[in-house]
Amino acid sequence: MTVGVVGAGQLGRMLAHAAQRLGVPIRFLAEGPDDPACQVCPDWVTGPLAALSTDIVTFEHELVDLTEVTAIEQHALVRPGARALAAVADKAAMRAAVDAAGVPAPHWQVVTTPDELAAAQERWPEHVIKLVRGGYDGRGVAVRPDAAVADTWLTQGPLLVEPCIDFTAEMAVMVARRPGGDHVVYPPVRTVQVDGQCREVRAPSGFGPDIDDLAHHIAVRIADSLDVVGLLAVELFVTSTGVLVNELAVRPHNTGHHTLEACATSQFENHLRAVLDLPLGPTTLRSPAVMVNLIGNATGDDPHHHVGAALTATPDAHVHLYGKAPRYNRKLGHVTVCDDDLDAASARAWAAVAALRGDVP
Amino acid sequence: MTVGVVGAGQLGRMLAHAAQRLGVPIRFLAEGPDDPACQVCPDWVTGPLAALSTDIVTFEHELVDLTEVTAIEQHALVRPGARALAAVADKAAMRAAVDAAGVPAPHWQVVTTPDELAAAQERWPEHVIKLVRGGYDGRGVAVRPDAAVADTWLTQGPLLVEPCIDFTAEMAVMVARRPGGDHVVYPPVRTVQVDGQCREVRAPSGFGPDIDDLAHHIAVRIADSLDVVGLLAVELFVTSTGVLVNELAVRPHNTGHHTLEACATSQFENHLRAVLDLPLGPTTLRSPAVMVNLIGNATGDDPHHHVGAALTATPDAHVHLYGKAPRYNRKLGHVTVCDDDLDAASARAWAAVAALRGDVP
Repeated sequence: MTVGVVGAGQLGRMLAHAAQRLGVPIRFLAEGPDDPACQVCPDWVTGPLAALSTDIVTFEHELVDLTEVTAIEQHALVRPGARALAAVADKAAMRAAVDAAGVPAPHWQVVTTPDELAAAQERWPEHVIKLVRGGYDGRGVAVRPDAAVADTWLTQGPLLVEPCIDFTAEMAVMVARRPGGDHVVYPPVRTVQVDGQCREVRAPSGFGPDIDDLAHHIAVRIADSLDVVGLLAVELFVTSTGVLVNELAVRPHNTGHHTLEACATSQFENHLRAVLDLPLGPTTLRSPAVMVNLIGNATGDDPHHHVGAALTATPDAHVHLYGKAPRYNRKLGHVTVCDDDLDAASARAWAAVAALRGDVP
Repeated sequence: MTVGVVGAGQLGRMLAHAAQRLGVPIRFLAEGPDDPACQVCPDWVTGPLAALSTDIVTFEHELVDLTEVTAIEQHALVRPGARALAAVADKAAMRAAVDAAGVPAPHWQVVTTPDELAAAQERWPEHVIKLVRGGYDGRGVAVRPDAAVADTWLTQGPLLVEPCIDFTAEMAVMVARRPGGDHVVYPPVRTVQVDGQCREVRAPSGFGPDIDDLAHHIAVRIADSLDVVGLLAVELFVTSTGVLVNELAVRPHNTGHHTLEACATSQFENHLRAVLDLPLGPTTLRSPAVMVNLIGNATGDDPHHHVGAALTATPDAHVHLYGKAPRYNRKLGHVTVCDDDLDAASARAWAAVAALRGDVP
């Protein structure tokens, strides 16, 4: 039974490796042969969702047409299903889904007119605006924007307005869930975001059992509420009084890349096991670890030329390159370092990333 | 710089994954599209060695024509080089190379005529015969053969005759070595062989530091003696008085598959790092582990149909299938289980393998 995957980026590439290891046939819906997943998997197609022609369909991004999804549900198992996909289709749907799950989250309001925007700005003088549709990876999000920026964005479509959260840190937690509800939860991680883009992930989180348990239970509650099949990633703000849900994703997630080396079962394998309705693997953290993203620099330097420098800087680095053309601010790879001392792991991971970016002579 | 690999079996498949993760281009010299490595790597060719057309050439099997190797050495870096390849080209060359390295090994004699065979049989009444050329994976080896078997084999070519070794156990150790001699050594493992075929690998070996150190130093000595670049696997007999070298391989090896999950750097990644002359990764055993081979059964049952049963039997199994058509006695995959209790790990790994073989209802 071939698993069809919508999207063929780096998440697809790492899913492909997990599938190939398990001997599970996998086919990608791709843009073309240079997509990261197509470089490692000869079985890919282009075209509409229906071109996949597989009995099971899953996703590595949320930019899908729900009408197409509903159509292929007639003859294929779509995992996660339309309910979970609808909840991540845009930021307003996500906020509504989080509220419906009855878990703590920031206040929010969707505005479509200048008057509504003005009212929301008055209500929350310190606020964040987000494009309801089309933003990703920090794009389409503005913290404490000038009024002129908000006015311009509003001409592009509805905006989500939220009060700024006075958070002390950010975290993420992942659930893998089978049809019927059987699930496993990964140990929560601390995340470091810059301009809305994940830069570093630390496992364990270091927030202590109370916060970790809270995040764990919130994630399971959302997964159950949306009947997620596959992975659910929940990003949260940590505040002085608890946690607030910030974002959801129903697919493998950047905050789970360390699971490849640091956990007993990787997020990619558990996503596949979940969508195939197979027993899930243990999520035990086998070693503390730090993951640092490799973001393309302004010079367009190609990290493929600097693998030797990275391994010289950090011989125990787990270097992952995605086979993407270098471009400013693009996620080109990541580095994970396992070490009981997370600060030491972080320093070594950043040293490898600096070398890959060509930032060291 | 693309790495060319001669052979595209399961070792190539796992090498491909390591290369893709590191962002290193890799190309295989294959038999055809169904080869295990070709299923995960679109870049492969068929034909003679020269068809690879890469700047670096390495190997996943020893069945190569040394004349062709010498020819491509004119314009490509061949790693390991001709000296190391010559030492594993046949069993007589291997024995001579081991003796030349000055490390302990069984006595041996090459016989080409019935008279020489009779003399060797008389010299060592309890003996093993091996086809000097063409045997692999236990085939071409007969322990205490009937005289009629030895006579027949001799008509096929020269034989290596050795006295039977009264060993108490078998072990293996792997070295990864860069040009110039920089190297790392993996913790030695205990191996369990049936009919000359590896069935189970346990790490750590459990033989204690004296035996492990001895094996470690023997392996480094052989690697230096042959100027190996890449991996050297040394299989040894453990006797009441020490160890004796049994076999060599200059490539990733079945006794190192557990390194994928159990060691800080896998054998596949360190083979690539060595042939690319990059810093080698640490070989630390992050967890005790047991690897069990999945050997095709007589019914020709396809393990791809039994992945669910295997994960039900052993949810923490690391299942590796090679994408090969099932055939009796063929290596179709392997399972690794990490656990501080090696007997428990072994039991769970065997349970998963039994399920994959369809041996359980």
